[in-house]
Parts: sequence; structure tokens; C-alpha cells
Amino acid sequence: MNCSVAQSLEIMGEWWTPLILRDALMGITRFEQFQTRLGVARNVLAQRLDSLVEHGLMERVPYQERPVRHEYLLTPMGRELWPTFQMLRQWGDKWLAPGGAPVETVHDACGHVLQARLECTHCDEPLRGRDQTLRHGPGWVVGDTPLVPELAG
Amino acid sequence: MNCSVAQSLEIMGEWWTPLILRDALMGITRFEQFQTRLGVARNVLAQRLDSLVEHGLMERVPYQERPVRHEYLLTPMGRELWPTFQMLRQWGDKWLAPGGAPVETVHDACGHVLQARLECTHCDEPLRGRDQTLRHGPGWVVGDTPLVPELAG
Repeated sequence: MNCSVAQSLEIMGEWWTPLILRDALMGITRFEQFQTRLGVARNVLAQRLDSLVEHGLMERVPYQERPVRHEYLLTPMGRELWPTFQMLRQWGDKWLAPGGAPVETVHDACGHVLQARLECTHCDEPLRGRDQTLRHGPGWVVGDTPLVPELAG
Repeated sequence: MNCSVAQSLEIMGEWWTPLILRDALMGITRFEQFQTRLGVARNVLAQRLDSLVEHGLMERVPYQERPVRHEYLLTPMGRELWPTFQMLRQWGDKWLAPGGAPVETVHDACGHVLQARLECTHCDEPLRGRDQTLRHGPGWVVGDTPLVPELAG
């Protein structure tokens, strides 16, 4: 199926990669830090970081000359995943964290613990999820699995 | 690490489950429809749907009596994943869909193709991602991996 969710999951859809991205969004940049925090095998971590660099979500940048050492920085493409992670975290906090949120963010501008919601960039109205209609977009290719059965014709 | 993103990925973090949820959010409810659209093996699909029911994201409801047939409906817990999927889809549309979005949603209230952004529910200001400060929340457990190295003390 021609779908941006599926395309995104091609990059992110295995267990370690989203956790690496989560840590990177929290400011982690160095191999040893990722490794200690995640407890992932070094070869798996190296492979996942290489894949993120290759797909354009991270770049590998030297931070020391002798010996040369690199850190992994999110590119704009990688950083722009923060809203997805914010909404996933809020969902987990609500449904899977009976003891309360393990981590929270404070909105610097207003000082409150951040609870984000989606709004429409055109009319600035908050979105509810039921107030939207799905349709094929410009990137749709005839012959693809139709969006929903009713759109098949 | 005590983290709601990780907890959420325990449920969603393998390839088929997010695609089942994506289709469910688009209105798909029946086993045969999921199976045809995803091209997934029947035993894998059955196992994944059972897991979603077990974790409370879906419920299995009879829609026909003789013979009894069931469909899979999202619970409120499952439906509330739509903002995560919306933001992931927008990210994929921007970075991974050079031919344009395969699927788009129209915001019924204003008639525009929906481009969502996050806003703070307290002050209604749009969020930028850099205007937030992470900290340990009420569900934090002493001894867990600290949020960021600077918070270790």
C-alpha cells in the first residue's frame, strides 16, 4: 500500500530505532550514552545509527580530533519527529502509566506541564479526530490498495 | 527505562501492529479486509488482533448470528492513537513522499486539506519542540535510567 505511515515505519518500525530516536530527541548524542541507556548490543546499535544516517535522520559529526570521535546529531528531518513522539508519549502516559507520567515536559512559555493537542494550521481550531474526511491525495497511484473499501470505485 | 514511549512501543513496536491500527483508524473492521489489504499471513493477523484486544485497544464484537461472525472495533484507548498516526503520516508525507501525499484528510470544519500542528492545551500557543523542558514526572522511580545525563544527580 502506498502510504506515508508505512513508509515512515520502514525506517522506524523496529524496536530499537524508535528508542534511539527518543533518546536523541532528549539530547543524547554519543554512542556510549545510547549504549549504556538502552542496553543494546553494540553491533545492533552501530547498525541502527548507520541506518538513521543513511536515511537522513541523523548525521555523524566529529567532536574530537585525536583520536577522532564522532557524535550523532539529529537532522531537521529527524528532529521533526518530535510531535509524533510527544503524542505517543502522552498516549502511553494516559493508558499505560498507572503511577503517573515517568517523564513530563514543561511548556516554557506558560510554565504548565505540557499537554499537547492537535490543531488545524488553517483555521486554528482544535482537532477531534472525527471531524476529518480521508481521501486519496496527489501521490496516489491508480492500482494501489484503495484507502477504504467505499473508495474502490 | 521507565518510559511511556517504550511502554507504548511494547504494544505497537512491530511491523504489522501499527499497520493494523492504521487501517482500523481508517474504518476497517473485518478480518478478511485487514488480511486482503495488508497481505499478512492469517495466523500472524489473528495473533496481532488478539494482542490488540488483550491490551485493550480493540474489542471483538459479533456482527452476524448464524454463523457467528466478529468484527474488530477500536476502543477509546485505540482510537486515541489517531494524533500519533496523524503526525507520523504528515512527517512521512513531507520527507518520504516525493510524489505528494498518497492520502490526505480534509478538515470538515474549514474545508482545507488538514495540516495539523501541536498546541499547548493550557495557553493555546502552537508548540515548536524547542520551547519545552523535560523533567522527571510523578511516575518516575528512583534508580531508573535518568532522563538525560545532567539529571543524574
